[in-house]
Amino acid sequence: MEQLNTFLKNITADKDPVNLYIPIEYILSQQGKRLRPQMVYLGTELFGGDKECALYPAAAFELLHNFTLIHDDIMDKAPLRRGKPTVYQKWNTNIAILSGDALATLALQTILKTPCEKDIVLDLSLLLSQTSIEICEGQQYDLDFENIDSVTIPDYLNMIRLKTAVMLAGCLKAGAILAETSERNKELIYDLGINLGMAFQLKDDLLDVYADDHLFGKINGGDIKENKKTYLLLRAMEDASPEQLARLRYCFSAAEDNFEHKFTAVKQLYEELNVKEKTEELIGQYVDNALNNLRNLTNISESAAAILQDWIIVLSHREK
Amino acid sequence: MEQLNTFLKNITADKDPVNLYIPIEYILSQQGKRLRPQMVYLGTELFGGDKECALYPAAAFELLHNFTLIHDDIMDKAPLRRGKPTVYQKWNTNIAILSGDALATLALQTILKTPCEKDIVLDLSLLLSQTSIEICEGQQYDLDFENIDSVTIPDYLNMIRLKTAVMLAGCLKAGAILAETSERNKELIYDLGINLGMAFQLKDDLLDVYADDHLFGKINGGDIKENKKTYLLLRAMEDASPEQLARLRYCFSAAEDNFEHKFTAVKQLYEELNVKEKTEELIGQYVDNALNNLRNLTNISESAAAILQDWIIVLSHREK
Repeated sequence: MEQLNTFLKNITADKDPVNLYIPIEYILSQQGKRLRPQMVYLGTELFGGDKECALYPAAAFELLHNFTLIHDDIMDKAPLRRGKPTVYQKWNTNIAILSGDALATLALQTILKTPCEKDIVLDLSLLLSQTSIEICEGQQYDLDFENIDSVTIPDYLNMIRLKTAVMLAGCLKAGAILAETSERNKELIYDLGINLGMAFQLKDDLLDVYADDHLFGKINGGDIKENKKTYLLLRAMEDASPEQLARLRYCFSAAEDNFEHKFTAVKQLYEELNVKEKTEELIGQYVDNALNNLRNLTNISESAAAILQDWIIVLSHREK
Repeated sequence: MEQLNTFLKNITADKDPVNLYIPIEYILSQQGKRLRPQMVYLGTELFGGDKECALYPAAAFELLHNFTLIHDDIMDKAPLRRGKPTVYQKWNTNIAILSGDALATLALQTILKTPCEKDIVLDLSLLLSQTSIEICEGQQYDLDFENIDSVTIPDYLNMIRLKTAVMLAGCLKAGAILAETSERNKELIYDLGINLGMAFQLKDDLLDVYADDHLFGKINGGDIKENKKTYLLLRAMEDASPEQLARLRYCFSAAEDNFEHKFTAVKQLYEELNVKEKTEELIGQYVDNALNNLRNLTNISESAAAILQDWIIVLSHREK
């Protein structure tokens, strides 16, 4: 990660105009989990690819991720990210639009410069650009869902697949492409990433309601406060009796100053409907699918496979 | 152009989510001059490249151009573009941010799919991504200049080089790359594009003040109304006597409802300082440089060269 951080730092070092590059440096220096580069490295190791080359796609996916954060924060009017002011808050919307645009392009440019065979570079670049488009689609569905009453569970699962899962899948597959493993392995590792990403996002939905807030670092119930459609809410709406549905709708029509009461009432309904258990069951299914994908891979590093298996368990059972 | 329009239409056809793709279809269907694709085709013809392949970079640069229009219109709060509501006005800012993001990625994806040798595809993709970053830099300088009092003429020329000229240069060079012409030719055609772009933008600055507004399609003096720093204003400020500078500053501190008076007073000062002639002289220099670049190219199609020469003259002498 040291090498990655230096690489990312060099992307913005001494560049003009500063109002474009300082915000990029700002968001890249808030390191977060660096989950996406770790997935690129893990995918590379799994199939025995070149670790030096992996630096470029690892950096590229991290740049792409940060582009989505800057633009999503404008759209969601989010004041804070990782405990710090978001780019559009610290500077302004125009600067956030432009520095996000530059980050997206830097991501593509970085992967185009991967120092390996041209076939591989092209495959990696096509993968990154496809991922980027799908993330835009996912974000648009997410925005659309705010104004649609009839979001179904399949709609929702498709949205989180695009918005969250394809990025993890892309990172893992980048490693597989670098290593020139079989087409079958490439498909399997991509599917594994999708399954892992789905479990990851559903766990996020769950933590919003049930996390120990000291561990999670966010105040519980944010999604409920903002009437956000999550798997939990959609599951509850689908399974509710007419009387329960009426109570649920009443909760979500409540004014914001009644949040404590709203949160308690929604949690009560979730309990009646076993929403927590049903969500955990679905997470379990995605985890099982991911572990199945892992078992079907061939010619892989056993030690890397063990690490990936740990990641699958850890990310879907995390408490923060 | 027929083929290009069909190609662009297919990019968004039947795609979901509609709130992402309909705005893209909307802006692409307002065809404008299609100047950038024309430059790609002209560059290709000049050096004898494959016209079928040229479709992809031609479409890609048009997509990239439209991405910049959508995002710039948000930043500039522009209500109209080509006589129609801008995307952020017709829909909203979030949709404009996202559909712009998707367009930028579609541009890269389109050029990555150019059906020719992998070396060439990579070179084209690197050219497009470099162009895209430089345009972001140019737009940031443009935004910065609104709040800086001491913008110099070299600063301004650098800004319009990045914001406008590199795109035309990139389009022409794309044709040269496709045709695998000599490195020297590639450099020359790029420089030609820069010189042409500079002349084009300076002519735009000039038309804002001196166009026949029936021909130009915009109301004259828009830049003056918005206190926009143009070459004309910076030239006037540099050449003004202390007394003239004071009058100029006074004009630009005037309230908006005095626009008629402001426009007349600024034009009066421009006349005293021969600003029109000085701008035309600079345009002439860029045109001469471009024609010089053209003369230094080797092994080119004479008929295409004649068309390019016409373009250089037409674009820098246009009245609209």
